[in-house]
Amino acid sequence: MEYNLALIGFGNVGQGLAEILASKGPLLREKFDANIRIVAICDLYKGSIADPDGFDPQALLDHINDKGDLKEFPAPDKDWDAGATIEMSGANVLVELSFTDLKTGEPALGHMIQALESGMNVSTTNKGPAALHFPKLLELSKTYGGKIGVEGTVMSGTPALALGMKSLAAAGVTRIQGILNGTSNYILGEMENGADYADALQDAQAKGYAEADPAGDVDGHDAAAKVVILANLVMGQSMTMEDVSCEGISGISAAQIQSAQAETQRWKLIGTLETVDGRMQGSVKPVKLDATHPLYGISGATNAITYSTDLLGDITLIGPGAGRIETGYAIIGDILSFSH
Amino acid sequence: MEYNLALIGFGNVGQGLAEILASKGPLLREKFDANIRIVAICDLYKGSIADPDGFDPQALLDHINDKGDLKEFPAPDKDWDAGATIEMSGANVLVELSFTDLKTGEPALGHMIQALESGMNVSTTNKGPAALHFPKLLELSKTYGGKIGVEGTVMSGTPALALGMKSLAAAGVTRIQGILNGTSNYILGEMENGADYADALQDAQAKGYAEADPAGDVDGHDAAAKVVILANLVMGQSMTMEDVSCEGISGISAAQIQSAQAETQRWKLIGTLETVDGRMQGSVKPVKLDATHPLYGISGATNAITYSTDLLGDITLIGPGAGRIETGYAIIGDILSFSH
Repeated sequence: MEYNLALIGFGNVGQGLAEILASKGPLLREKFDANIRIVAICDLYKGSIADPDGFDPQALLDHINDKGDLKEFPAPDKDWDAGATIEMSGANVLVELSFTDLKTGEPALGHMIQALESGMNVSTTNKGPAALHFPKLLELSKTYGGKIGVEGTVMSGTPALALGMKSLAAAGVTRIQGILNGTSNYILGEMENGADYADALQDAQAKGYAEADPAGDVDGHDAAAKVVILANLVMGQSMTMEDVSCEGISGISAAQIQSAQAETQRWKLIGTLETVDGRMQGSVKPVKLDATHPLYGISGATNAITYSTDLLGDITLIGPGAGRIETGYAIIGDILSFSH
Repeated sequence: MEYNLALIGFGNVGQGLAEILASKGPLLREKFDANIRIVAICDLYKGSIADPDGFDPQALLDHINDKGDLKEFPAPDKDWDAGATIEMSGANVLVELSFTDLKTGEPALGHMIQALESGMNVSTTNKGPAALHFPKLLELSKTYGGKIGVEGTVMSGTPALALGMKSLAAAGVTRIQGILNGTSNYILGEMENGADYADALQDAQAKGYAEADPAGDVDGHDAAAKVVILANLVMGQSMTMEDVSCEGISGISAAQIQSAQAETQRWKLIGTLETVDGRMQGSVKPVKLDATHPLYGISGATNAITYSTDLLGDITLIGPGAGRIETGYAIIGDILSFSH
């Protein structure tokens, strides 16, 4: 299969994807019969380039490292905006990596609609459109035939959505609980080690775990978006951000954390989907877990999700929740699933 | 899709499968367009019955519970042996659930070859053929067009093989470590709680965790078979039981377990596949794990597997490793994957 990608956005994740294609391109061709090429990049700050023959991914990375942008990168077509890139690049896969807006989903939503309406496949790691408008996107996918992949919106390349949507689809998922934000989990762990909140946050930012604006990490909104995505994709609900009650970690004091530790308990920011009084409810809030809870041992920036099922009991998946390569891998996973 | 199953063996797993079909049949039809019927059962002790129109799974279970076998169950065809069942039942899926023989793989191997050569699909939870002859079975599958599913051979219905073979296939799996035998993990946990080895084993048997002959659980051979299956299916190796070094848990003393606990360490029976001196090596042996190891916290009869990967780091999946319903679910998973 020939996959010609148009990337909208070329920040960490886009560059991680280019790195994977540079190192694993031959393996992907040989093992999966997948010839994946970047034929266009459109980035507000780094410039826009397009070449129907595809770019050498390593050359793109070298140029970025050298010049900081792609404005002087040699390409037959230049300076297209996102709409023109989607329309004219000849790509059959839109890789939507623009910034996340959890209020409107824009501008990513418009890009994805344009691509789906022209029959293109879409892969995105952007939580906005997936959390706010998934049913509409799915309908366009069915109408026009392009596939849509959003694996990277929850736990980066850790296949949390594939597990819930495919492997466990017949097992009867009754409840989902997850540590879905690495920054807040890292901060809580550092506070267990004696750090105060501000230092722990600064440390998380220095290590690259925190989003550009860490507010969404620590106030729970990032995790809440993932709860909404899980509700829609795994549980078949029509849930929006407003349906999820949300409380972050800033109200947890050092004293609370220490007194929990003294009783072999840990405070964790837990996203939950469960049926209460016959209705599916979503929440994000700090929960004090006993040592027997499957999410008790999850430390650092690692993420984890526990699917409680009718037939198999609890199934827990643990893996990275962020990172340029880790999130780039989610796009590879989406693309390989398009042909199945 | 119409799936007509011939079950060879109708013990715990076969009855678990019938229970799932009785409770989830409508869901499987509606959600997956999969109409799964049992058209034949051949069991050495419980009798053999066949009906091309399919049996009511609940009626089969009720009859077994009432009479202890199926000899008087009304059916148009009776008393076929395994060969005749495969040949004449009209089934398009052989569900091979006869007893595991890790020396020859028989009689399951012969049944599977017969079915594959007639173009049938095959799902099995029997570790023998998968551990000893997978390359041959795969070749028959390719030649004659029937699919083969073995998800239940490792960690029962927990989708450990699907994770390694599909979701992580492009992530570059470099090492696999797992707690792959629930009985031995349960015994080690009970010994941590102060029980002696013999009492803990008896307890595991009473709870139904141990295999009929628990020798394979505690001497590591059951876990070794799973290591061989992972080597062949996930790592693309041609490994056999003889290639896996194997040491069980009977040499671990209560004193060793307690001294490990005093240092916040735990003894676990770990199956490992890793490259040593440029060659893939498989082993099963007791390993003393630090609290930071992803498998440290796995308690009771639960199983877990950690895939170490190039692109995602460590991905760990935790879930049941045995059980009638849990293992029956693996067959459902195999069958649903046949159409993808």
